[in-house]
Amino acid sequence: MLTIGVDIGGTKVAAGVVDPQGQILDRVKHPTPSDDPRALADVVARAVGELRERREEDEIGAVGVGVAGFVDEDRATVQVAVNIGLRDHPLRDRVQERVGLPVVIENDANAAAWAEARFGAGRDSDHIVCVTLGTGIGGGLVLGGRLHRGRFGVAAEIGHYRMVPHGRRCACGSHGCWEQYASGRALVAEGRDLARADPEAAERMLKLADGSVEGIEGRAITQAALEGDPAALECFASVADWTGRGLADLAAILDPECFIVGGGVSDAGDILIDPVRLSFARNVSGGPGRRLADIRVAELGGEAGIVGAGDLARR
Amino acid sequence: MLTIGVDIGGTKVAAGVVDPQGQILDRVKHPTPSDDPRALADVVARAVGELRERREEDEIGAVGVGVAGFVDEDRATVQVAVNIGLRDHPLRDRVQERVGLPVVIENDANAAAWAEARFGAGRDSDHIVCVTLGTGIGGGLVLGGRLHRGRFGVAAEIGHYRMVPHGRRCACGSHGCWEQYASGRALVAEGRDLARADPEAAERMLKLADGSVEGIEGRAITQAALEGDPAALECFASVADWTGRGLADLAAILDPECFIVGGGVSDAGDILIDPVRLSFARNVSGGPGRRLADIRVAELGGEAGIVGAGDLARR
Amino acid sequence: MLTIGVDIGGTKVAAGVVDPQGQILDRVKHPTPSDDPRALADVVARAVGELRERREEDEIGAVGVGVAGFVDEDRATVQVAVNIGLRDHPLRDRVQERVGLPVVIENDANAAAWAEARFGAGRDSDHIVCVTLGTGIGGGLVLGGRLHRGRFGVAAEIGHYRMVPHGRRCACGSHGCWEQYASGRALVAEGRDLARADPEAAERMLKLADGSVEGIEGRAITQAALEGDPAALECFASVADWTGRGLADLAAILDPECFIVGGGVSDAGDILIDPVRLSFARNVSGGPGRRLADIRVAELGGEAGIVGAGDLARR
Amino acid sequence: MLTIGVDIGGTKVAAGVVDPQGQILDRVKHPTPSDDPRALADVVARAVGELRERREEDEIGAVGVGVAGFVDEDRATVQVAVNIGLRDHPLRDRVQERVGLPVVIENDANAAAWAEARFGAGRDSDHIVCVTLGTGIGGGLVLGGRLHRGRFGVAAEIGHYRMVPHGRRCACGSHGCWEQYASGRALVAEGRDLARADPEAAERMLKLADGSVEGIEGRAITQAALEGDPAALECFASVADWTGRGLADLAAILDPECFIVGGGVSDAGDILIDPVRLSFARNVSGGPGRRLADIRVAELGGEAGIVGAGDLARR
Repeated sequence: MLTIGVDIGGTKVAAGVVDPQGQILDRVKHPTPSDDPRALADVVARAVGELRERREEDEIGAVGVGVAGFVDEDRATVQVAVNIGLRDHPLRDRVQERVGLPVVIENDANAAAWAEARFGAGRDSDHIVCVTLGTGIGGGLVLGGRLHRGRFGVAAEIGHYRMVPHGRRCACGSHGCWEQYASGRALVAEGRDLARADPEAAERMLKLADGSVEGIEGRAITQAALEGDPAALECFASVADWTGRGLADLAAILDPECFIVGGGVSDAGDILIDPVRLSFARNVSGGPGRRLADIRVAELGGEAGIVGAGDLARR
Repeated sequence: MLTIGVDIGGTKVAAGVVDPQGQILDRVKHPTPSDDPRALADVVARAVGELRERREEDEIGAVGVGVAGFVDEDRATVQVAVNIGLRDHPLRDRVQERVGLPVVIENDANAAAWAEARFGAGRDSDHIVCVTLGTGIGGGLVLGGRLHRGRFGVAAEIGHYRMVPHGRRCACGSHGCWEQYASGRALVAEGRDLARADPEAAERMLKLADGSVEGIEGRAITQAALEGDPAALECFASVADWTGRGLADLAAILDPECFIVGGGVSDAGDILIDPVRLSFARNVSGGPGRRLADIRVAELGGEAGIVGAGDLARR
Repeated sequence: MLTIGVDIGGTKVAAGVVDPQGQILDRVKHPTPSDDPRALADVVARAVGELRERREEDEIGAVGVGVAGFVDEDRATVQVAVNIGLRDHPLRDRVQERVGLPVVIENDANAAAWAEARFGAGRDSDHIVCVTLGTGIGGGLVLGGRLHRGRFGVAAEIGHYRMVPHGRRCACGSHGCWEQYASGRALVAEGRDLARADPEAAERMLKLADGSVEGIEGRAITQAALEGDPAALECFASVADWTGRGLADLAAILDPECFIVGGGVSDAGDILIDPVRLSFARNVSGGPGRRLADIRVAELGGEAGIVGAGDLARR
Repeated sequence: MLTIGVDIGGTKVAAGVVDPQGQILDRVKHPTPSDDPRALADVVARAVGELRERREEDEIGAVGVGVAGFVDEDRATVQVAVNIGLRDHPLRDRVQERVGLPVVIENDANAAAWAEARFGAGRDSDHIVCVTLGTGIGGGLVLGGRLHRGRFGVAAEIGHYRMVPHGRRCACGSHGCWEQYASGRALVAEGRDLARADPEAAERMLKLADGSVEGIEGRAITQAALEGDPAALECFASVADWTGRGLADLAAILDPECFIVGGGVSDAGDILIDPVRLSFARNVSGGPGRRLADIRVAELGGEAGIVGAGDLARR
């Protein structure tokens, strides 16, 4: 059986036909309609329809939809999805009535984690923690070979466990959340702070930006770091240190076999991952005798969401 | 089928016959032999033998043994159990060859958590986090109805995830572990710090102790708090605040249906639990709309370890 | 000799004739001209002129001007005064050429501290730290009987020493500044956080506000606390705890004879000061044998700025 | 007039004849008598006597004695000096009655700070903060050209202001003191932690020690860092980061013209000072426009205590 995986992002709806080996056989893409829940189900249905047209009848058995937001425990309702303007929206039923196939909705980070666990960097492991270092931090847990969704469907909000008591205010309303210290946003904050305090040291980053402190973005820091610029490497060192600390906490709680690190910040490769590994080893409780989880880089990139949503629909 | 659950503690080996409803039908108890792994298996075997003698032949089908230490993923070897002097000890085989029944070894906090999940405060829930506030903090996770042991058998070391970066040194070698702030040891440290800073305010606690700051123990603080002593209540407020913070972190990561709080500190009842609930509500990420996990007091008390070990042996 | 003290605030310019005993003999007040440095000197000169007209000729010998901003080491130039729109402004000369008397400019918190040191709660002490808990935290140091202005005139920015590494972002650009935890703003943040997490517990505060979380201001919290409302008292307890921690740090560094606590938050009186004292005693380094600085409430209220500026002009 | 400066350390009593230019003209040294306050005054008197014998009559006008401990506000009594076993000891009178000259007692870090302020790295500055990074952190403040001793004689205990709330326990009984993060002890802790977590990375430090983690001392880390060893440099980076944070806090409070950094850790020179300067610039409040205090290395080395005690006796 084939399925269709859909990944609803803030700007585009990407869909693909997914086979049981996690390969994407065909793809379509449409812009995300802004702030119109009704139109959203229409666009998803259209994408599904286009892909089905190009297949044999009955070849597609189900549809999985990944969305950046809280999805309830029945995988039917999107509770909140800030960047696409949904709140308590019965997305599963809306799509199902349009496409006439079984549909499941899933949080996009969960979908991506499932894809990595089944077909990517975690395919040989039963206990996996996926950490997506994007603008914030997304997470997905596969424990005992099963996606762990939690009681209310909102498990793995790992970016919002507290790293620093009384720490930096987070958009979530809380203080000191992990993503305030280890994420793309944190990387940029480091770069700008450093450039303000010592513009000379930050010369390369400033040049790769538009010359202004506020122009420094993750891309400039990453490129400077890959060139060996010490200031940019220091920014990565800070993010890596906090990332490793978070993985150490998750290891104490979950004892996974591996961590899979993805997201834009991980594009820096070893410049990020090597110091993350050292920080993890230095911060994990249990001493030198402890067998440590692997820290691996995600393998499926931006299409993990489609693959994961499609595969979850199969189950 | 009946089973036997054994709980190996630092001072005694307690065993009981456990029925499928989690009832203990019979009990025996022996002192823990100190620092002699061979003798330990003998004592366990003796306890099992005594209980079997008082039953019909073949009534007992398996033995579960809970031990305070790291147990490997095969539930066969005790990797480290500091307070009973075991290291890389094949306890399962040693007991099995003596009793001639299937044996499983389990971490004692895991065994207790399983008992609470099956027969205690969590019997109606699928996703449970048990938090035992003893001298330190012990933990057990039941996720999706299954005991989560982790890849290497050491999941749920929740007392050693980091609460405070660069925080208090912990006996585990790390800094800032949760149990340095929310445990019996932390409660006592609070009481003594307060008594040193303001002996007048701490008068009641000092009197319930032997009059000396160093004589203040958890019992005195608990009793003073139950009497309404403001200083003792302040000590509980601190421990409760940090406990709630930890539960909030675990909720962000695991999204359980309930937390079950046990251990000696929880003997204080509402004096502890009410401020824990408030702290949890204040610190959990996700805002007012979020459905929150229940915080419940453990129901099975000191025998949860026997019940859990016995029931795990049945599976 | 009499002098005139002027206190330039964000909304009004208040001036008074100050005698050598720190009494204010006469007063005038004008609105602060917005964002017009030239007009500001005119208004100050006008206030001075009005007060002089009502005196004997030559009775007034000098003018002191307190301003909320950084004043340089020569007490001539206002480097930055955000809320009245000055930057590198030669305020002393501008006023001097208009009034024809010797003029000194001083930071307003320094002026107020000097007044308390000379005529208020610190009049019998040589080493004084003034802490003004307003919206933020202002400070003034009198050490060895002299106002400590520092090398560049910006000493005693105590609200911006760091209380929490990696802590809450501050308007000053830094993170974790003391005033993010112990100030009127912090009190309000506590109240709103609590009301969001537990509206029922915050009922009294909400009622004293307009019923909305965002309507909760310091006034409502203070009134509720004075009525004995537990939730409001908890907000004060948090601010008091952090205040006492800061005083303990300042005691370790400066070893003053007394702290003088003023500002709007201190209007709550013992509800604030009692827990501040306890927190101070618990957090100060040096053990029970150490002789501790007094913690006193400011005595001169809102006119301390006029008195201090006037008296500093005399020297 | 010449004076004699005496520096009482844990193992030796060093004395010298000090001229008004801060030069030491003659020296003697004796072992510190252990735990015998009476013998201590005898040894100090003997050292003074020997130096006077080699001078013209009446050439020596006064004696200053520096001691590692709390000295009261009258500079007469040693309140506590743990490492030489004094408690509430009238050292000034004991020495004075033996030598027949005016005597002042001073805390040794204050004496050394005074020497640096008068004759060393701070000789052109009025507002100076001395920071001695030894095993712990010692401090001395010269404000407005005067030694700031505080109300009770114990100012400048800067090693025990709190850097981290709820942080590492300190020998002083408090938690999170600065010296737990930025001192020789902190450097060694970093080195050992790193060697435990990653022995391979720490290979050079281990080799310069005796091969064991516990054998790693400050000397080995410093030597490895001077050779360019990345792991050792990382240890210095941590200590430098926390040092700069502390200087930033002190700048917010005191606004000095310069910081003078001395003590054993500063032997590493630029390897320490360069990152301290960067950390200071990044952490100081006030933004890029702020004029920053210089950070200088101490110039007088181990004899600053003698010079400072001698010079203070002259006043």
